[in-house]
Amino acid sequence: MDNIEQIEKDFKELLSELEVYREAITLTQWDMRTKIPKNGVEQRSEVVGFLSEKVHQLETSEKMKYFIDLLKDSTQDEIVRKTVKECEEIYERNRKIPNDEFKEYVMLQSKSESIWQEARETDNFSLFQPYLEELVSYNQKFASYWGYEDNIYDALLHNYEPGVTTAMLDKVFPEVRKSLSSLLNKINQSSNKPDPTVLVGHFPKKDQEDFTIKILEQMGYDFSSGRLDETVHPFAIALNMNDVRITTRYDEKDFRTAVFGTIHEGGHALYEQNISKKLVNTPLATGTSMGIHESQSLFWENFVGRNKAFWDSNYELFQSYAPKHFQQLPLGEFYRAVNEVKPSLIRIEADELTYSLHIMIRYELEKALINDEISVSDLPHLWNEKMEDYLGIKPPTDREGVLQDIHWSGGDFGYFPSYALGYMYAAQFHNTMKTKLNVDDLIRNNQFDQIRNWLTENIHQYGKMKKPLEIIEDVTKEKLNPDYLVNYLTNKYSKIYNL
Amino acid sequence: MDNIEQIEKDFKELLSELEVYREAITLTQWDMRTKIPKNGVEQRSEVVGFLSEKVHQLETSEKMKYFIDLLKDSTQDEIVRKTVKECEEIYERNRKIPNDEFKEYVMLQSKSESIWQEARETDNFSLFQPYLEELVSYNQKFASYWGYEDNIYDALLHNYEPGVTTAMLDKVFPEVRKSLSSLLNKINQSSNKPDPTVLVGHFPKKDQEDFTIKILEQMGYDFSSGRLDETVHPFAIALNMNDVRITTRYDEKDFRTAVFGTIHEGGHALYEQNISKKLVNTPLATGTSMGIHESQSLFWENFVGRNKAFWDSNYELFQSYAPKHFQQLPLGEFYRAVNEVKPSLIRIEADELTYSLHIMIRYELEKALINDEISVSDLPHLWNEKMEDYLGIKPPTDREGVLQDIHWSGGDFGYFPSYALGYMYAAQFHNTMKTKLNVDDLIRNNQFDQIRNWLTENIHQYGKMKKPLEIIEDVTKEKLNPDYLVNYLTNKYSKIYNL
Repeated sequence: MDNIEQIEKDFKELLSELEVYREAITLTQWDMRTKIPKNGVEQRSEVVGFLSEKVHQLETSEKMKYFIDLLKDSTQDEIVRKTVKECEEIYERNRKIPNDEFKEYVMLQSKSESIWQEARETDNFSLFQPYLEELVSYNQKFASYWGYEDNIYDALLHNYEPGVTTAMLDKVFPEVRKSLSSLLNKINQSSNKPDPTVLVGHFPKKDQEDFTIKILEQMGYDFSSGRLDETVHPFAIALNMNDVRITTRYDEKDFRTAVFGTIHEGGHALYEQNISKKLVNTPLATGTSMGIHESQSLFWENFVGRNKAFWDSNYELFQSYAPKHFQQLPLGEFYRAVNEVKPSLIRIEADELTYSLHIMIRYELEKALINDEISVSDLPHLWNEKMEDYLGIKPPTDREGVLQDIHWSGGDFGYFPSYALGYMYAAQFHNTMKTKLNVDDLIRNNQFDQIRNWLTENIHQYGKMKKPLEIIEDVTKEKLNPDYLVNYLTNKYSKIYNL
Repeated sequence: MDNIEQIEKDFKELLSELEVYREAITLTQWDMRTKIPKNGVEQRSEVVGFLSEKVHQLETSEKMKYFIDLLKDSTQDEIVRKTVKECEEIYERNRKIPNDEFKEYVMLQSKSESIWQEARETDNFSLFQPYLEELVSYNQKFASYWGYEDNIYDALLHNYEPGVTTAMLDKVFPEVRKSLSSLLNKINQSSNKPDPTVLVGHFPKKDQEDFTIKILEQMGYDFSSGRLDETVHPFAIALNMNDVRITTRYDEKDFRTAVFGTIHEGGHALYEQNISKKLVNTPLATGTSMGIHESQSLFWENFVGRNKAFWDSNYELFQSYAPKHFQQLPLGEFYRAVNEVKPSLIRIEADELTYSLHIMIRYELEKALINDEISVSDLPHLWNEKMEDYLGIKPPTDREGVLQDIHWSGGDFGYFPSYALGYMYAAQFHNTMKTKLNVDDLIRNNQFDQIRNWLTENIHQYGKMKKPLEIIEDVTKEKLNPDYLVNYLTNKYSKIYNL
């Protein structure tokens, strides 16, 4: 029998093969979302399908099982041990789903996405309804294959935020909701509202691009290991830690889309660029969960980019790219305007405060769906009711309501909570960081190196070596605590709105 | 045993798999040449290497051999028959090279290319010499494995221009050279030379881009099945017939680089975009040879783009994008200036007439190298001697001499002749086309559809269904005849230079 080093070497070769396929798939997806000509899409979908099948085959192969069994209890190497554990979990979860059902589901996903697009464009929920019903039922089936202790929805949450349970969310979300609603009420009644019309103007795309590139460079986004492109729906994507790409959207009437969007995607990218090189060519070389990822993007977007200190140092630079009337606009008014709170219909356009309320609506609905407490046909009116209840506004169409987000059309149930968790994580990290660093002073002086290094040292470097809640506790020395988010928002908006 | 339809179906599945890998590799290469950040290159090279190995394995697999043997004499389907033949040739040629030697050679290639780059940058041929010696020796070895009838160089020519032999080139090239030299002499002595300084000016990149896109659209390049990007070294690349991408370079001091370069790459792209859909997912769905490919790019670049008729209709459009002083420049002077003949050191900057002379120098040298008639260390001074002999100028450095082209550093011996063959093919096609269509009238009226359709009908659609010389004879009803090129150039330049 081979010795352990030889087996580890062979195992690493299998992992490298997997990473090659993953990089090819990721490049293919990046290209499909940024550059591909219309007629190239059909054949390209076959490429993605074929390569994804290869990954799936390798992940669930006998060869993989052989390495898992041999190395699980015998390796001395911490990285190998955690890699084996990760591979084992993927192996077990994927093996539990019968091949036929998996293939049917993949086909359903890709069909549902295009049906959803049509349904949204034509504002016709009933077109999407049968597909969504099937997607829910597959997710229920898969959840039962995977198993769960308490709530069936836990099995789905696990895909995006392992360790987080429905019970935890049911405790935390209502608390946060209550505080945010009360804060929102006060804000709505404030007689001292910022004036967002001062931000109106024409911002040529090129100027926005030049400015956002300067900001990305300040943040420490490494353009030798990444690039910035333009897309309708901005995203960050890691081919590997040396090639982490972001995209943004330029609205020539509103600079906020590109400026805050780019900082947000830049935050995701910093996470992937700063994972330890030791994890290269393992499945650990990526962000540990959707929630921790979102904590990084939101940290940069809001705790840095929407911070007064950030504009203390960058407003002059911004003015040099902005229309002339910004020369006359005092920083204070500018800062208050970019932090306006206003309930709105579309999640991705929501402000810092109401964003989490949007998420809670989706969480409550999908949890009830998966638990068979409501049916898909109830969704449109339940959505609208909750919007009125939580945000005080009612979508005039399903297009601006239940049909707005892509997630469910891809069968991604259990994903939405990560967005709100990410916010809470970010606030909790921010609080700990402030005990170690003069965060606002550093921001005010554009000394982002210390901030980025802190995040790298405490979060980025580990990739998937640590689970999300493990990171929270290691870094902040306590469990998930939503008070930090509530306190942060209360302090911030009390000042802005003179509450 | 399966029936023949089932076997053909299984064979097609294997071919689809190959095409998936090829598309992934091609996308990866496109990305590496256009978009990849610097630090992404290293890991990406592993992706290319791994996927290329997969292709090589499939091409030389027992499974492939099984299909070849079963289908070779039994299929009734013309496309399947030619596909099997193509697969058999790839199988046979690749199987003749021992696996070890193939791997060593691939590593040598990639190392040599970076050494060549360094050697060129530092003008240091001796750095590159040992690598080139090894590359020559591998190519001699491979040529002997593949076999040849007359001259060892034939075995290499076959990789790029199957059917063309050293004997043919040794007959044709000297004839052409003699005629071109005599024409060049007359041009050098002409007292009626065009004035290229009239073309000088500042051409903002955006204007050049807008103009060249308009020209591409006129040519019928389909942007729904392609895209245009910017690179230092322009190229055309087909991911499949529905995704054929081109790149160009913008020189803000000289519009000719982008305008004629884009038309050239557009010509390559039209070939790939217009291959019959019946050939999709087979190895026949690409241009049949380097020479026929070059005939298409040169046809559009020179026979269309440098034609007086083209500027009769497009000069006004050009003027609307060009600096103001072009409003005062008469079309006649403009046309003569873009057709200036002037011996120069760098092949890719050569004019229409002297270009082929550059090719002949490379051909004679590499043929002698492969035949062991000269040694690698002789190259620099032999190169310079020939430059003086054929073009009347001597490179002051090896950088502008023997080190200028990338081909040899990749082991591509036998490639260069395709460039000159492409010219001759283009002229021969052009002559036949003129017997069917009023080519210049069509060009003058920007009615490129008929021209493009003629090329598609006679050349593009077949992909690799026809061999290069088969196409020449089918279309022009005669064998390769260099007189058409000589006559075309003589007529054209006699008018421009008043000879």
